[in-house]
Order: sequence, then C-alpha cells, then structure tokens
Amino acid sequence: MRRTAAERVIVREVGPRDGLQMAKAVMPTAAKRAWIAAMAGAGLSEMEVASFVPPAAMPQMADAAAVTAATRAAHPALLVVALAPNLRGAQDAAAAGAQSIIVPVSASEAHSRANVRRSRDAQVAELGRILSWSRSLGEGRPRIEAGISTAFGCSLQGAVPEAEVVALAAVLAEAGADVVALADTLGYAAPGQVRRLVRAVSAEVGADRFGNLHLHDTLGMAMANVLAALEEGVRGFDAALGGLGGCPFAPGSVGNAATEDLVYLLESEGFATGIDLAALLEARQVLAAGLPSETLHGRVAAAGIPRTYQAAA
Amino acid sequence: MRRTAAERVIVREVGPRDGLQMAKAVMPTAAKRAWIAAMAGAGLSEMEVASFVPPAAMPQMADAAAVTAATRAAHPALLVVALAPNLRGAQDAAAAGAQSIIVPVSASEAHSRANVRRSRDAQVAELGRILSWSRSLGEGRPRIEAGISTAFGCSLQGAVPEAEVVALAAVLAEAGADVVALADTLGYAAPGQVRRLVRAVSAEVGADRFGNLHLHDTLGMAMANVLAALEEGVRGFDAALGGLGGCPFAPGSVGNAATEDLVYLLESEGFATGIDLAALLEARQVLAAGLPSETLHGRVAAAGIPRTYQAAA
Repeated sequence: MRRTAAERVIVREVGPRDGLQMAKAVMPTAAKRAWIAAMAGAGLSEMEVASFVPPAAMPQMADAAAVTAATRAAHPALLVVALAPNLRGAQDAAAAGAQSIIVPVSASEAHSRANVRRSRDAQVAELGRILSWSRSLGEGRPRIEAGISTAFGCSLQGAVPEAEVVALAAVLAEAGADVVALADTLGYAAPGQVRRLVRAVSAEVGADRFGNLHLHDTLGMAMANVLAALEEGVRGFDAALGGLGGCPFAPGSVGNAATEDLVYLLESEGFATGIDLAALLEARQVLAAGLPSETLHGRVAAAGIPRTYQAAA
Repeated sequence: MRRTAAERVIVREVGPRDGLQMAKAVMPTAAKRAWIAAMAGAGLSEMEVASFVPPAAMPQMADAAAVTAATRAAHPALLVVALAPNLRGAQDAAAAGAQSIIVPVSASEAHSRANVRRSRDAQVAELGRILSWSRSLGEGRPRIEAGISTAFGCSLQGAVPEAEVVALAAVLAEAGADVVALADTLGYAAPGQVRRLVRAVSAEVGADRFGNLHLHDTLGMAMANVLAALEEGVRGFDAALGGLGGCPFAPGSVGNAATEDLVYLLESEGFATGIDLAALLEARQVLAAGLPSETLHGRVAAAGIPRTYQAAA
C-alpha cells in the first residue's frame, strides 16, 4: 500500500560478515573497504562488517579489526556492527570500534556444537559474561544483540520446536541482551512459521527489543518471509548484496536474502529504506571486482530495475 | 498456518507452453510427452500443454496438435489446457482435444500489438468471436479463459493503470468469458499491487470466475506475490517446472514462477496441492534430458528438500 508519509524499514547489510565467511577466496582488506564505501554511499545505515573469530578458523575474517576500525573512521553515520561468538571476540570487536555486537546462540543443540563448539547452555553462559563485561563499561558501551541461530530449523537437528525458541528468547532477554533477534540460518523458514515465531518472540521480549530478522534464501522463500514479517510489524531485516553467503551446514544453500531484491520489495510496498537502488546495483561491481571468484545472485540485478519501479515517498 | 483439513490449491503447470516458447531449442514431441507424463505422475491436475500459433512464428509449438491430442489420450484425469490468440487457433486447439482454452488479451496496448499483432480492442473483438463459436458447440464445448496479459505492468508501456485492468476484466466477463485471469507477464508485480488488483477484479467478475494467477519471477517477487494472493483468497496459480520461460519483451527475465518452489510454499503453508514434491523434482531430469540447452532455475531443486519439509495433511 502507498502511504502518504512512508514508514521506515531498516536494511542491515551483512555481506562483509555473513556473505564472506563462506567465500572460496579471501577478499583483500582494501577491496572490502571499497565495497563497504560503495554500499554506505548507496544509503545503507547499518552494516555488519566482520566476525571476530580466530583467523585460523576463518581466514576471510583475519582483518576483522582493521576493517571495523576503518569503517568507523570512514563512515561516521553508519552503525558499525560485528559478530563475536565469545567474550574475547566481543572485546576485540569493541576495541576496534564496533558499536553493536551480535552474539550468536543456536536454538539447535547440534548446530551450537558445530558452530561455536559449545553446548547451547554454555553459549548462554558466555553471553552472560559478555553482557556483564559490556555493562561494566558504562556510558558508550557497545550494544549487545543476542542472535538466535537456526530459529526456523536446522540441517543437523531437523525441526526446532517453536516453544524452545520462545523459551530461549526469554532467557536471553532476561539475561539482559539489548536486542534479541531471530535468524533463519539455514533458510528453511516458511511464512506461517515466520508469523508465529515473530509474534511469540516479540510478545516475550517486547517489540522494542526485537532485532532484525535474518533470512536466508536457500529455498527461495526469503521475500515471502519478509512480507509475512512486515505484516507482523517487523521493521528491520538483514541482507547481503548479491545474495552472498551460505551456511557450511546447508549444502546447496545460496545465501542471504539479496539486499537489492529486499530493497526493491520494501520500496515497492511503500516502505522507505533510504537506499538508492541504482547506486546499490552499482556497488555489485565493486563487490565483483574485489571477489571475482564468487557468483552473485539477485533477480533485480539480473533483470535491471524495471521502468515501473517507484521508490517510497 | 496448519489446518486440520488442508484447503486445496490448484497448481497449473504451464511449462510445456509458456516455458518452451522462449527456449532456444525445439523440444522434440516425444520428449514433451515424457516430460508431461512425469509431471502428471507427480500429481499435477491441470496443464497448459501448447500454444496454437502459426508454426512459422513459433517453431517450438509446431507440434501443438500432436502434443495436445497425445496428452488427452494418455492422461484422462488431467485438465488439458492450450493457449490460442485467435479463433483459428482456438478451433485447432479444440479439435486436438483441449478442454480449456486461454485467450490472451493484453492490458497494455503496446504489448497487444507486439504480442498478438492486434490492438487491444481488436483482440477483445476476437475473443467475442471465439466465445460465440464456443457457445455454438453446446454441451462439451471447451471452456474459454480470458487471460489479461501485462496486468501488472509492461516493459513497452511501463505502468498499466489498475483501473484500466479492472475495466478490461469487466468487459471480458460481460462478453461471456468463463474465466478471467490476471497475468504478470513481465514479472513486475509487487505484493500490494497483487492484493489490490486481485480484490478489485475478483469483485468485478465474481470469485467463481476469477482464474489462476499467472506470475513470473523476473524480479524475485513471485513467492511473495503468491503469499499476498493467497491472503486475498486466490486458490489457483500457474507455474513452470524449473522456472522455465521468459518474455520476449523483458530482457533478463528469468521466467515463470518455479512449480517446485510454489508447491514447497503452498504445502508448507498448509495448502494441499496433491503434488508429490520429490516426484516433481525427478520430473526435472526428464525435462533436462529433453531440452539440455536450457538452464533450469528453482531453489528447492538446488538445495534439495529439507528434512523440515512437511506436506499439508
């Protein structure tokens, strides 16, 4: 529906983190910075730029501190976000200038052990340590977002009971996470499921602490899931330019929801993203130049912006 | 939402018609028959198998009569549908055994002239001749479906005013079309637009005469558009296996909504399609064997059916 004053929806680009961690090649730091600059120039206001994990485990993220610091310095208007699986990573992320830190907690026990090599309970305890540390910093402390991975299903465990996800969200909120977010890490979500979980978790943690919905497009359902979430009041989404990414535990997975397609959908539905779609498509060239071995997805880029496209007022 | 008794949604496979007419190669008749058999075996109950146009204009459809007749003979439970742009084509389709005939009428004047080489008014008049002829056949006559092409926008004309589409639908219903259907020929539709047009046209022609919604996935919005249409009460959709197809007037267009992904969405949302998704994926092999030059799309096939998939009860 067209609205006279368009409602705002936040699109957080997560390509430099989630999009790159599965890439076959390591993107050079300068290329990452050029890509981030192109996307910030297109109007993105939040960006997840790095993952603070041991470089041996993820060489694509060996320059996490450099990329985070450079992004903070170069783009003062951007909310700079980083992922950290543990206290050490969170401290490094904050030291590098990350303003918001995502701590993943898997709803699936099997995924937790595979992803952070810790049981779910142990990861909840680690989040507690991160929150205590963050609170100890007082004013200017980084915001801590608890991201519930595999909230919509897991390739290792299969279905994840919705009641367990809601209970976990309650535990994370109770522990003091600034934000609790749901991630469809595998891309298994369907719209009805999105509606139910968004509604239940939002009721549990409060709409003001409900984080960005993180969707993957493994089964081609990402845009339908966005639509269902919009109808439930979600006003923040993660996405990666070119649909980059994938999950090491999901063969055939094609990655995150494509930022270009998400912006097209949101603006067409009358939501203002603040993003210039044509400029965003140009940023794909910068990405492709810096990471030529990776296949980029995204339908709007393949077809071109149609003449019927109208950005929200 | 899960329902105790799953509501039925019709999925009409249009690959053998809409999917093939843009293919670079001509699929041999025997290969078409094998592909149609594989899809009928997977549980599809309606299929658009051919377009009755001059073979010089579309060599892929030179065997339209043979394919239509063979499908009728081999699959008595299947509703056999064909497209015909004019009276001559409709008569040939009926003679070959088509039980339902789609007559395209473009909402866009420019598309009408490019597609059927007639003005929109002239094509409405042609539909009138087809309807008169069909009525003259009495019992057992073919059903005539008026399909409004470019109902959601046109690459040649740009935006198509919704009021014009609704007015055209009224004219077609008044003329006596058994069914009036909306086609997003270019794949430009967005969910809000789908909701508005479905509601308006359905109110105009009556829900019982509102035909299958025909969606293309040019911009990656097909599944979101399906979701919006479901919420407006639409219970019939066109799709093509492997997302085959495209429009000669839409460069970069990647074709019809993929049948596999549509079935995945519908069943996951609790709607019964009667289609066995695993068997449908196997039918892709038959398609690929008969048309090796064509790239198949579809995310469910790329990723595989996840273990969390549950068909509607």
